[in-house]
Amino acid sequence: MEEEVKLHGFWASPYSHRVIWALKLKGIKYEYIEEDLSNKSDLLLKYNPVYKKIPVLVHGSKPVAESLVILEYIEDAWPHPPLLPTDPYHRALAKFWIQFAESKGLIFFEYFRAKEKEAQEKAKKEAMEVLKVMEEQVLGDQKFFSGESIGMLDIAYGWLAHWLQPMQQTVGIQLLDSTTFPRLHAWIHNFKQVDVIKENLPHPENLLTHYQRFRARIVADN
Amino acid sequence: MEEEVKLHGFWASPYSHRVIWALKLKGIKYEYIEEDLSNKSDLLLKYNPVYKKIPVLVHGSKPVAESLVILEYIEDAWPHPPLLPTDPYHRALAKFWIQFAESKGLIFFEYFRAKEKEAQEKAKKEAMEVLKVMEEQVLGDQKFFSGESIGMLDIAYGWLAHWLQPMQQTVGIQLLDSTTFPRLHAWIHNFKQVDVIKENLPHPENLLTHYQRFRARIVADN
Repeated sequence: MEEEVKLHGFWASPYSHRVIWALKLKGIKYEYIEEDLSNKSDLLLKYNPVYKKIPVLVHGSKPVAESLVILEYIEDAWPHPPLLPTDPYHRALAKFWIQFAESKGLIFFEYFRAKEKEAQEKAKKEAMEVLKVMEEQVLGDQKFFSGESIGMLDIAYGWLAHWLQPMQQTVGIQLLDSTTFPRLHAWIHNFKQVDVIKENLPHPENLLTHYQRFRARIVADN
Repeated sequence: MEEEVKLHGFWASPYSHRVIWALKLKGIKYEYIEEDLSNKSDLLLKYNPVYKKIPVLVHGSKPVAESLVILEYIEDAWPHPPLLPTDPYHRALAKFWIQFAESKGLIFFEYFRAKEKEAQEKAKKEAMEVLKVMEEQVLGDQKFFSGESIGMLDIAYGWLAHWLQPMQQTVGIQLLDSTTFPRLHAWIHNFKQVDVIKENLPHPENLLTHYQRFRARIVADN
């Protein structure tokens, strides 16, 4: 008997979407449970007592937290189709670049939350440097970060494709467009052409409103 | 023909030692190259252009950087004896707790570098909370973090066993001893009883001098 799969997530979270995309790409049936982040469910707090955060995947009675740990769990528990290379070296490279993006992710949040002009310029400069590495060293001339087809690296970088735009629009600073990073821009198009991605993205207008409210709270909070 | 394995490291680094322990536990022959961190080798810069940091493992012509990525590469390339559980759920749990320690590691550095009494007390309090989670939730009543025998979780947490003591001694604040965290304290003993660990640790006095000099530079730098 197959064990039930449940996902505790939040509609606007790119981390929740990583898990949704991986489950859909693997063809795994699951039940989605939307969490109210201002009033988290007892189950979420029970399943992830350390961070108390979404996403949490529950497989049978086994909870797994942290989106990147969940992605690797999904890959181990349902190996086909693979989302990571099977060759150890290419697998290590994929993990290296996933970790790179995770460790640099804070810079994009800095750029979003910066209130002073100077801090904003500094964060913009740093974020552009990260995007340059992503464009030149990670993506290069490939269609996807993972090569000819979508893989875990694309899933991990997925927030670039749909979440960066409303963040940019909210603060009025453009980091990534067809002129600054033409290859990343082409990747966004390729990524969003994949059915599983296209069909599982939050509505752009709702996401923009979400970020505008978020930004308003940051600006008001002195 | 087996490909050569080389490790670029630094004698005082717990990250280098993670890789050394994993290679030794797997019985992999390798050449160790000590890096002068104030004058890094051209090879290191070529192999790890993104971070320019040790450790870097070079297998044949293939460089792998970042200690946790290297540990998983070693596990994938030389599966026996395994350092991670083979069961996907226990594997995910191990990765979750490895990531926990990585994300909390900065707190121990804060405690080491804090100059003001207040900042020191704050960092001490936070570090104690992390140690409490490690003692109660990660280690529990087990001999090793990985269970009955040493595994990747122990390797990742290895800095607790040998690096925390000279850090504590340098700043004069004791976080972990037999009274505050008896089970972590017992684990340190168990961990250092393993031959591969015991035989591959930096000399305690050299490490203490290293941290004292490090601290003196921090204090002088206003």
